[in-house]
Amino acid sequence: MASLLRPTTWGLFSWRGYCSRGTQGRLSAGFVEALKAVVGSPHVSTAAVVREQHGHDESMHRCQPPDAVVWPQDAEQVGRLAALCYGQGVPIVPFGTGTGLEGGVCAVQGGVCINLTRMDRILELNPEDFSVVVEPGVTRKALNAHLRDRGLWFPVDPGADASLCGMAATGASGTNSVRYGTMRDNVLNLEVVLPSGQRLHTAGRGRRFRKSAAGYNLTGLFVGSEGTLGLITAATLRLHPVPEATVAATCAFPTVQAAVESTVHILQAAVPVARIEFLDEVMMDACNRHSKLNCCVAPTLFLEFHGSEQALAEQRRSSVITEAPTSPGPRRQRSAAASGQPGTTPGTQAWPCGRAARAILPTCVCPSPGCRRSWCRLKRTWRPGDSQVPPAPCGRVGQGRGEARATALSSGPPGTIVGHVGDGNFHCILLVDPEDPEELLRVQAFAEQLGRRALALHGTCTGEHGIGLGKRQLLLEEVGAVGVETMRRLKATLDPRGLMNPGKVL
Amino acid sequence: MASLLRPTTWGLFSWRGYCSRGTQGRLSAGFVEALKAVVGSPHVSTAAVVREQHGHDESMHRCQPPDAVVWPQDAEQVGRLAALCYGQGVPIVPFGTGTGLEGGVCAVQGGVCINLTRMDRILELNPEDFSVVVEPGVTRKALNAHLRDRGLWFPVDPGADASLCGMAATGASGTNSVRYGTMRDNVLNLEVVLPSGQRLHTAGRGRRFRKSAAGYNLTGLFVGSEGTLGLITAATLRLHPVPEATVAATCAFPTVQAAVESTVHILQAAVPVARIEFLDEVMMDACNRHSKLNCCVAPTLFLEFHGSEQALAEQRRSSVITEAPTSPGPRRQRSAAASGQPGTTPGTQAWPCGRAARAILPTCVCPSPGCRRSWCRLKRTWRPGDSQVPPAPCGRVGQGRGEARATALSSGPPGTIVGHVGDGNFHCILLVDPEDPEELLRVQAFAEQLGRRALALHGTCTGEHGIGLGKRQLLLEEVGAVGVETMRRLKATLDPRGLMNPGKVL
Repeated sequence: MASLLRPTTWGLFSWRGYCSRGTQGRLSAGFVEALKAVVGSPHVSTAAVVREQHGHDESMHRCQPPDAVVWPQDAEQVGRLAALCYGQGVPIVPFGTGTGLEGGVCAVQGGVCINLTRMDRILELNPEDFSVVVEPGVTRKALNAHLRDRGLWFPVDPGADASLCGMAATGASGTNSVRYGTMRDNVLNLEVVLPSGQRLHTAGRGRRFRKSAAGYNLTGLFVGSEGTLGLITAATLRLHPVPEATVAATCAFPTVQAAVESTVHILQAAVPVARIEFLDEVMMDACNRHSKLNCCVAPTLFLEFHGSEQALAEQRRSSVITEAPTSPGPRRQRSAAASGQPGTTPGTQAWPCGRAARAILPTCVCPSPGCRRSWCRLKRTWRPGDSQVPPAPCGRVGQGRGEARATALSSGPPGTIVGHVGDGNFHCILLVDPEDPEELLRVQAFAEQLGRRALALHGTCTGEHGIGLGKRQLLLEEVGAVGVETMRRLKATLDPRGLMNPGKVL
Repeated sequence: MASLLRPTTWGLFSWRGYCSRGTQGRLSAGFVEALKAVVGSPHVSTAAVVREQHGHDESMHRCQPPDAVVWPQDAEQVGRLAALCYGQGVPIVPFGTGTGLEGGVCAVQGGVCINLTRMDRILELNPEDFSVVVEPGVTRKALNAHLRDRGLWFPVDPGADASLCGMAATGASGTNSVRYGTMRDNVLNLEVVLPSGQRLHTAGRGRRFRKSAAGYNLTGLFVGSEGTLGLITAATLRLHPVPEATVAATCAFPTVQAAVESTVHILQAAVPVARIEFLDEVMMDACNRHSKLNCCVAPTLFLEFHGSEQALAEQRRSSVITEAPTSPGPRRQRSAAASGQPGTTPGTQAWPCGRAARAILPTCVCPSPGCRRSWCRLKRTWRPGDSQVPPAPCGRVGQGRGEARATALSSGPPGTIVGHVGDGNFHCILLVDPEDPEELLRVQAFAEQLGRRALALHGTCTGEHGIGLGKRQLLLEEVGAVGVETMRRLKATLDPRGLMNPGKVL
């Protein structure tokens, strides 16, 4: 019976919660009243502008607005909302900061968008246990601001000031994952509202242990599930002590190949770096222009070390780093060692990479003033790549990029490559004219080719952005038919009516 | 229909594969012939002695033999065996080295034990990617012996020379997890034969990336599933570069409390230790006697640092460690720095902890010669504890131990405590007279009390041994009814007839 009620195409609604007014699904007045009864009238909106705002993230996926947006204030309300929607067959789309990059919040079947940002309390801080419990509205910057004077920090840094529960839902990572791991490694427990409205504590209520062998790893199943299995209403996160000092070095290389090969050597020599970031010559030039820097315009590695003053001095002297190729670099610079959270203190901000990295998103490459191709207007720019390969093939990324661009974009738009190369994750960023449909098609083909290139190198089509809407075909190619079928069965078990963020991942 | 066929009590069989000869289930001759047709006659046994040997692990759970034991030679055979058994409704019990500690291999419903130890090839080594693919018969020592000259090692070390796929199935960890993580962190991909016989590659065939955000984390779901969801037929593992040097220090403390509080301080100061092991005074005395050592008989921490020579020299000078309480210690000793795999080279073996740790399992505490209570006879000894708490409550472990023993064992058997305190995991080891049923009952009650004490401190009832047979009630208390119900639904999805290692975990 449940399967009969499941919608198979977008816009065809026949559930009780919906009026059947053509293909533009609308919630019935009674259903909207029921939503208001749960969260209060001021916390429900069906205004077009609000719905539009919630129909897209920062990717190029077209806006697909939900039919209503609600702002619950606590997990109990989320549970009642979920049960209400699920009982009436209305799709549920969780929403955090909307900073995703794979269309994860697009309401492809309409339904109710549950905006969790008004649940923004830090519920519990346990400094001795290195753990914190946050509601879904707490962003990573807000948490680190809260922790600043306690000698602790949360290191997962995907760039955007995303909500921590959203980061858990996406399986985010970022620049620090070489040393501190990704969200998968730093989420200790999740409170999840299941579609039925039941509340699940994935590691048990109040638990905050580092390791366990007790039963199935439910926390691991929900991290990265992109809102398709339930709504995350609280996350227990692992905190880390702020290192005594942070020291950085930059090395410019003659070629992309030389830079990434050097990365492999550094990893093989077990040099304990915290980050290894890579920017190609195009991005270095853009960073120079945007941030008024004077860095060498060449493929460049940015290395960061966390530890005690003395240990850091030794690490920077590491023979592996000083043996890096010498033309046109390596050119090493050292920031003042700082005692605060890495990346947030004056010392580390002075590090060019700190500024360069911060500059990437707003600036990117703008070949000429007034050019229609602009990264600054995020909605107008395609950002196809989020590929991840094992460390060794990382050295072939340069070749891969050359090949792929030669094939797909021989006369195409300008592009650049940045990478968290310490764990083999790299992003290609292309400037696209969104009003040129042919160019868009070519870029889309290039993005798929890039994903397949990563797959051919035993990698993954997405290191940290998730599958969302755009990479479902690549997921099938990555994990195979049995893998996708197993995922489908798990999804059907936890969400038998297929109403949790439908159309995503699978 | 399937549920009608599922056995609910041990020994009541009505499936086609079984003859209905009373409560002692026996496989029909035709079924045994079918097993032989898959793996060849020499690789099937129904001999009582063989079945007995496969009916227990190293725990005190009573032997419950399977009805037959088979030794497949490859994953294709495993797939055919699974499909055969599943089609006939015969329980399937995977078997590795049998070194588990929670009765995970006991055939509580009889059935076919699939011994995977003859699949013992290292299938693929990728030194540049820091990864290796192993079959289920490869043990951790065999892998490290294979890696010895390549500058790589696999650091997860649960004590026993367990099979790596068995360690994945249990979610094992051990002494190195402070720095290198547990099996959950070091398994990159698994080949799993599902009950249907289908082969699943949890991260996709041939994939060996470090991080991914592609779909549900199937690898994470199967790590720690204790053979209840499928049979692991290959594991892709993350390798680590052998550190340039390994240096160790020991610190004796006046009390257990002081030792574990010092651990919390070391962690808070972000001193990058690789291991922090704790042995109480009883265990230190046993180690002295067994290994002819002359260590201080007091609660003792053993610290190990991995890195470059210079960085290590700095770490050992760390103010935190030298500021440890000074009566009767700290007494620090330094091993020769070694360039091989930590724990396996002459340098680190010279470290008292290296010897002490190796000595723990065979020796334990033997109060007087000829005493009936003996750890050496493993089957005769109860080893109740595998609790894990967050770092801070670790400091209360000493109290907890005192309390629990005072209540449960005021006049009870001698016991000791050892712990991987760097991540809050500790084991209580008691010497038990297995022929004294009253003592056994009291020890069982103590074990449960210890588990509940860890739960009360926001911890887990099992840090690394798994749930198996003995901790199912504690699992319910740990994750709650919704958590267990969710696990049950996942199990029913992947194993609808409940035949994969039945009676374990849930």
